[in-house]
Amino acid sequence: MDYVIGIDLGGTNLKVGAVLAHGEVIFRKHMPSGVEEGRDGTIKRLLYAIEEVRFHVKGKRLAGIGIGIAGAISMKKGIVVQAPNLPGWEDFNIKEELSKKLQWPFFVDNDANVFALGEGWCGAARHNNNFICITLGTGIGGGIVLNGELWHGIDGTAGEIGHIIVEPEGIPCNCGGNGCLEMYASAKALVRIAKEGKSNKAEKIADDITADEIAKLARAGVPYFKQIFLSQARYLGIGMADLVNILNIEMIVIGGGLSKSCDLFLDAARDVMVRRSFKIAGERVKVLPAELGGDGGILGSGFLAFKGLGLL
Amino acid sequence: MDYVIGIDLGGTNLKVGAVLAHGEVIFRKHMPSGVEEGRDGTIKRLLYAIEEVRFHVKGKRLAGIGIGIAGAISMKKGIVVQAPNLPGWEDFNIKEELSKKLQWPFFVDNDANVFALGEGWCGAARHNNNFICITLGTGIGGGIVLNGELWHGIDGTAGEIGHIIVEPEGIPCNCGGNGCLEMYASAKALVRIAKEGKSNKAEKIADDITADEIAKLARAGVPYFKQIFLSQARYLGIGMADLVNILNIEMIVIGGGLSKSCDLFLDAARDVMVRRSFKIAGERVKVLPAELGGDGGILGSGFLAFKGLGLL
Repeated sequence: MDYVIGIDLGGTNLKVGAVLAHGEVIFRKHMPSGVEEGRDGTIKRLLYAIEEVRFHVKGKRLAGIGIGIAGAISMKKGIVVQAPNLPGWEDFNIKEELSKKLQWPFFVDNDANVFALGEGWCGAARHNNNFICITLGTGIGGGIVLNGELWHGIDGTAGEIGHIIVEPEGIPCNCGGNGCLEMYASAKALVRIAKEGKSNKAEKIADDITADEIAKLARAGVPYFKQIFLSQARYLGIGMADLVNILNIEMIVIGGGLSKSCDLFLDAARDVMVRRSFKIAGERVKVLPAELGGDGGILGSGFLAFKGLGLL
Repeated sequence: MDYVIGIDLGGTNLKVGAVLAHGEVIFRKHMPSGVEEGRDGTIKRLLYAIEEVRFHVKGKRLAGIGIGIAGAISMKKGIVVQAPNLPGWEDFNIKEELSKKLQWPFFVDNDANVFALGEGWCGAARHNNNFICITLGTGIGGGIVLNGELWHGIDGTAGEIGHIIVEPEGIPCNCGGNGCLEMYASAKALVRIAKEGKSNKAEKIADDITADEIAKLARAGVPYFKQIFLSQARYLGIGMADLVNILNIEMIVIGGGLSKSCDLFLDAARDVMVRRSFKIAGERVKVLPAELGGDGGILGSGFLAFKGLGLL
């Protein structure tokens, strides 16, 4: 029986796993991406992890390799076009380079797109053909699936949902714009908002407070932190309403690190979305947390490879 | 030689014309939609105009009829789902009703979608497969073309570009939301902004001032009115940036009544869009005024019919 290797390459973590055609991960290897070692260092780790997976998977043939990368990818050429979290990867032709080093067919896409492929294959959107996945992590990414196919756009940059403008005079964003959703609804945004309100409140807020800690305090019922999530939910709801009004999709799936705190914001975000969307289009949208958790990227990249090979 | 009839049904005007397969309108009949006479009155006008067109077109066979309607259309059933400017048309199955009354194949879509079909066929987007048309009239509509096909969404409400949220705490919109693009960048919005600023300025502003008059004064160099268009351009640019970041399309075409004033806002709107979009995706987008003018709806509906008949 054939298997493929799925790779999830982020700015922090590198996850590599062996995936079967029915959507099972039979072996996984996690390690830091090691971006501080430069691009070559990360590629060395990646090749090592592939060897490790191959060593552990017995009695099966490796058919191909898929990878999801935290950056904008030009699909035609396989070039990383923009990758703020992977220094040195911009303008790098990963498809050409790794095809030289590896003897298996190699498929590449953006990490948020690959996440959407995974959720559509065997996650929350497995019964849907028209949905959008939003990854709420340090930043915000997105993958758009229309008629069962990823919509990449002309240059491969479609789905930049983190840069929907939610405050016309809002704070500056790394993209060069300002008031982007990413600045108001990501993990990074929660931390900023918590710190900014610091001087106005009695609670002590550590300088190195994390989104997880904010979630913990909100869940414990501390009003200040609950309020931070309500503000985040409002902006997320505005971004989702824009998506619904523009694309009239069936489902929105929320993934990324923040998705484990969906209990704190998702109902509120959905309420804002419904109120601000066209009636029929808004009410019909299911908004769900992602189902695949830490394996999502591996499964999605696995699907990318299976699909590319014509095996699915 | 075959011809089709293209119909453009708005809340104010009804335009009916005979269209040839190379994109020529050989006869056209314009009249008021007569919404005050109710739905049956408008349908009577429509049937009369079809007869008029048939009477004037000699020596050609009528192959089919296409119509673009100012409302959200459920494509599967041919039902008008939502039509604020056509009272009495909601939940009306126009496809079934007119198929009974007419002996020719009948095709229906939303007016902004039909406008996009026309511009893609023989207008500004004729060399493009991935573009968005925005109609700036009393309200704001949109048609999204991806891979050469209209994207209708699940319920037929996709492309509601007028309801992209550009001011999170903005003024209420008919859709039930608030801060929608339509409230800041349509002809209606220009008039509202002109009147609101009235008390703060020396110029006299008539109670029944129109968007055309505002344009005339802005073109004459009156700073107050020039400023109104710059505000409109900023919000339009924000909406366009959202579209670019989400969909990474090749072109945006501006139509509707306000498009004849593109000289007053389009360059400024494009600048805002480029600054607020992902670099590659934003810089590559061509932003152009529509080319088909008053015949756009007839040509688009004609194309809808030719395409539906398999003749194009």
